[in-house]
Amino acid sequence: MAEKTSKKSKPTDENTIFVGNKPPMSYVLAVVTQFNNGSDEVIVKARGRAISRAVDTAEIARNRFMKNSEIKDIKIGTESMTNEEGRTSNVSSIEIYLSINKKNK
Amino acid sequence: MAEKTSKKSKPTDENTIFVGNKPPMSYVLAVVTQFNNGSDEVIVKARGRAISRAVDTAEIARNRFMKNSEIKDIKIGTESMTNEEGRTSNVSSIEIYLSINKKNK
Repeated sequence: MAEKTSKKSKPTDENTIFVGNKPPMSYVLAVVTQFNNGSDEVIVKARGRAISRAVDTAEIARNRFMKNSEIKDIKIGTESMTNEEGRTSNVSSIEIYLSINKKNK
Repeated sequence: MAEKTSKKSKPTDENTIFVGNKPPMSYVLAVVTQFNNGSDEVIVKARGRAISRAVDTAEIARNRFMKNSEIKDIKIGTESMTNEEGRTSNVSSIEIYLSINKKNK
């Protein structure tokens, strides 16, 4: 339970959920927690095969838990990765921007 | 080699590439062919685990083969599917809209 005093220092990193190989519900929980902590926007990021899980995460969060949230933007891209053998390969990535619909502001 | 005479009847279906379990390059070829046949817009669609392959397809097509194309829009959604046992489950889907930058028009 480490305390975070520099709450406003890196908003982009703190608002980003990196989706990996865990079950989608783990990431959905992270998204919901992020919104409940006061974030207006949460970014769900993933690379490679986890991309479909990132879409699952965004869809489950939006349809089941945060019905006042919406998908603001989706970006896809290509990242170069170097594996342990030193070979470079390209991997696709996705960023899904979820935002909350607040009545005021 | 069936002839298609009703070429203009279903433009949306004809412009849509459904991504499944084949290697991404098969779908890249389909996208490039579609553009070369005169389409201004190609929609790459996928469901479930094929979503990451759809992103690969769009990225490879855009970065390697159709450098004058761009991603116009990306939509994600949830579809209900009924399996052979009669159970309904939700599956995520993606639609990537690729369009060509033409100098004239």
